[in-house]
Amino acid sequence: MFNRVTIIGVGLIGGSIARALKKHQLCDEIVGYARRENEVKKAVALGVIDRYETSVAEAVIGANLIIVAVPMGAFESMFRQMIGTISPDVVITDVGSAKTSVVNAAKNVFGVLPPGLVPAHPIAGTEKSGVEASFDSLFENRCTIVTPTELSSDSAISVVCDFWQAIGAEVVRMTPEHHDQVLAATSHLPHVLAFSLVDTLSQMQEHSEIFRFAAGGFRDFTRIASSDPTMWRDICLNNKDAILTSLKQYEKQLKKLEEAIAEQNGVKIEKIFSNAKNARDTHIIGG
Amino acid sequence: MFNRVTIIGVGLIGGSIARALKKHQLCDEIVGYARRENEVKKAVALGVIDRYETSVAEAVIGANLIIVAVPMGAFESMFRQMIGTISPDVVITDVGSAKTSVVNAAKNVFGVLPPGLVPAHPIAGTEKSGVEASFDSLFENRCTIVTPTELSSDSAISVVCDFWQAIGAEVVRMTPEHHDQVLAATSHLPHVLAFSLVDTLSQMQEHSEIFRFAAGGFRDFTRIASSDPTMWRDICLNNKDAILTSLKQYEKQLKKLEEAIAEQNGVKIEKIFSNAKNARDTHIIGG
Repeated sequence: MFNRVTIIGVGLIGGSIARALKKHQLCDEIVGYARRENEVKKAVALGVIDRYETSVAEAVIGANLIIVAVPMGAFESMFRQMIGTISPDVVITDVGSAKTSVVNAAKNVFGVLPPGLVPAHPIAGTEKSGVEASFDSLFENRCTIVTPTELSSDSAISVVCDFWQAIGAEVVRMTPEHHDQVLAATSHLPHVLAFSLVDTLSQMQEHSEIFRFAAGGFRDFTRIASSDPTMWRDICLNNKDAILTSLKQYEKQLKKLEEAIAEQNGVKIEKIFSNAKNARDTHIIGG
Repeated sequence: MFNRVTIIGVGLIGGSIARALKKHQLCDEIVGYARRENEVKKAVALGVIDRYETSVAEAVIGANLIIVAVPMGAFESMFRQMIGTISPDVVITDVGSAKTSVVNAAKNVFGVLPPGLVPAHPIAGTEKSGVEASFDSLFENRCTIVTPTELSSDSAISVVCDFWQAIGAEVVRMTPEHHDQVLAATSHLPHVLAFSLVDTLSQMQEHSEIFRFAAGGFRDFTRIASSDPTMWRDICLNNKDAILTSLKQYEKQLKKLEEAIAEQNGVKIEKIFSNAKNARDTHIIGG
């Protein structure tokens, strides 16, 4: 499928893509780049990538496909370092959790959006990080949202969709803006709420006692508050508007529930709880 | 340990207590009462209890220990039906998720709090309900918070603490008020937040799509929103003040985070996220 694939950022996601490419024999050579040389050295030692370069500019030379798998805050810098050494017909995709900010970063750097740029977001991951945690089936039977820009070429869109499907993902297409709204609601907002809850409790006077009596429900509810703070800071910075919109909607609904509790309005409380239970039981299969 | 134990409400919790009493051979006879005769008939058929009565008044006759395991909203009515048939030296405990409301219900009914009344709350349960779901090890190595009233006698407190320890629980003592504050923060608030989030999302236009892209983090975060709406309505009605206090603290902290996101203040966002992650990783062992 490809002669040379370059992966910028060889951590859990970048490493898992490399492993999946090898498993499905989709390319002749995988070149890696990471900010820390240590990481790419480890990736070569583990057989995850074939070789590495210590600069983005060199890593992308001759690549048919470039996959950017770095934290959201580093995209603009990565794009900038590609200028001058990427081939004109290269296809570029990425795995960022927010998509309009990727488009904006590319606009800032390239002026005009490259027709080969087709942003994407695999809905997959684990709470671990680093290339040691990567595995070749991470994307199998998981959704990857592909978000072409207005200027993405049909051929580049096909290449990116085919690539994700070839490593086992179910591909869904939507606009970058729509992606950001959906993910704000379903992923970014829950993370913000969970971080904020644990932060709130940790500031209560009796916090050690509070955590002591936390049962299984609390453990599940707050698991995402053990996620990487830097990664989630970057997501908040890069999907600000959609996150704030969902957050405001949430706060409004929460106020309604708060009022119902203050008024001891059992009917209203139960209606909200039943509606939530029904929605969850209907849409989230398997508990 | 006891000649006769009466269990009012033979569902998951009441049934599991009965099974544990039998397993540890702690009493000669277990009498059950449930609002639906069907439930207690099933409990007898399953060998969970020895016999049942169709009225509370009859069920409590001759009991050394009464355990009230009904929804929070039914306590006052249960206490009222005991008047006249309980023995003067009976010990009464319960499993309600809020404790000051149990004390208040008893005050309303008995005028003066009975010295034999020692409220308790086992921090145990599953998402299932009904006597079929009960099992004899539900309380083993789990905490039970015992919350004596100002008028609980020392001997009744000992009986209740010994009873919970005998069925495997780790007993912790605190006041009913303090219990309600701790549980509001650690259990009731997370439930309120989870119900409210799923309710909010279910009202968004694109809600089927939103739920479609929900990943594992969302599943864990919202699991408690599949809990029983009636039970949780009752908890909100019976622990109103403590829940509202925690909720207001939470809303205040959430506003700070919202401001940090709106201001694109990466340092402040990361500080909140790191603080949460550290607190969770420190206090919640095992992910």
